[in-house]
Amino acid sequence: MVFEEIECSGDDERFMLEAIKEAAKAASEDEVPVGAVIAKDGVIIARAHNRIESSGRSSAHAEMLAIEEAEAKLGAKWLTGAVMYVTLEPCSMCAGALVLSRISRLVIGADDPKTGACGSLYDIADDPRLNHRIETERGVLGETCSEQLREFFRNRRKTTEECR
Amino acid sequence: MVFEEIECSGDDERFMLEAIKEAAKAASEDEVPVGAVIAKDGVIIARAHNRIESSGRSSAHAEMLAIEEAEAKLGAKWLTGAVMYVTLEPCSMCAGALVLSRISRLVIGADDPKTGACGSLYDIADDPRLNHRIETERGVLGETCSEQLREFFRNRRKTTEECR
Repeated sequence: MVFEEIECSGDDERFMLEAIKEAAKAASEDEVPVGAVIAKDGVIIARAHNRIESSGRSSAHAEMLAIEEAEAKLGAKWLTGAVMYVTLEPCSMCAGALVLSRISRLVIGADDPKTGACGSLYDIADDPRLNHRIETERGVLGETCSEQLREFFRNRRKTTEECR
Repeated sequence: MVFEEIECSGDDERFMLEAIKEAAKAASEDEVPVGAVIAKDGVIIARAHNRIESSGRSSAHAEMLAIEEAEAKLGAKWLTGAVMYVTLEPCSMCAGALVLSRISRLVIGADDPKTGACGSLYDIADDPRLNHRIETERGVLGETCSEQLREFFRNRRKTTEECR
């Protein structure tokens, strides 16, 4: 994926491109390429990518690591006023963590019809029964994010077949 | 709460009592008293309690910390064959994390009608659309777990009123 060729028309796309770059780091470490950045007042305060395999922790999703880093940086347990940009729709765990963090806005790249919990299987980020609702936008550089995932799984299948 | 007075009739109740003792540690640290233990082959491999305030991390729920500890102890990212005992019904984040950890069984003390995601608001732990389902049991020493939470909030209200 050549990042310079991706056209960005505004802040949301520019920050999503940074999340895509994080996802590319995951792919290079043989992790499913999902990346996330958190911005506040127009500045990135946390960046992370999937680290499930390298950490041996099933919960080491990009979103969880980014939330943790942002809270540590702000010295606060709440991320009011901050925005998360993530290349793939968060799962139940990550959507729940985002609600707990009280982040203000969530910008998603590709949908995840299998485990997504921000509109696909559930809508945890915007559930009126919970005590915090997150303004959510989907499909920002969505096709690029989807293609990054497809490319990873295509390469993995190829490698597996070559090893047979 | 006098632990010696709590009657346990089997393994589930005995392990839940250990989770209740963890929750009591949380209360003594001025954290909402939720405790969790993870057992495998009849032996406790992880114990944790809420550490949200002391860690400054909104995701530092007892369940998340116990999963992390159990995975580190087993040197594996999956908890197949293990059982979690938790004093309060897990929220979306923790239920999602339990599914990702592929834990085999979940034993819950008190229900959480406000944010519970294992039968109350959602049933993430046993959703046929996800690729892992957890055998779940609710209400084990449920009244004791509820009373522990009620006592904590009663004391907190009292302290707040005294400070006025």
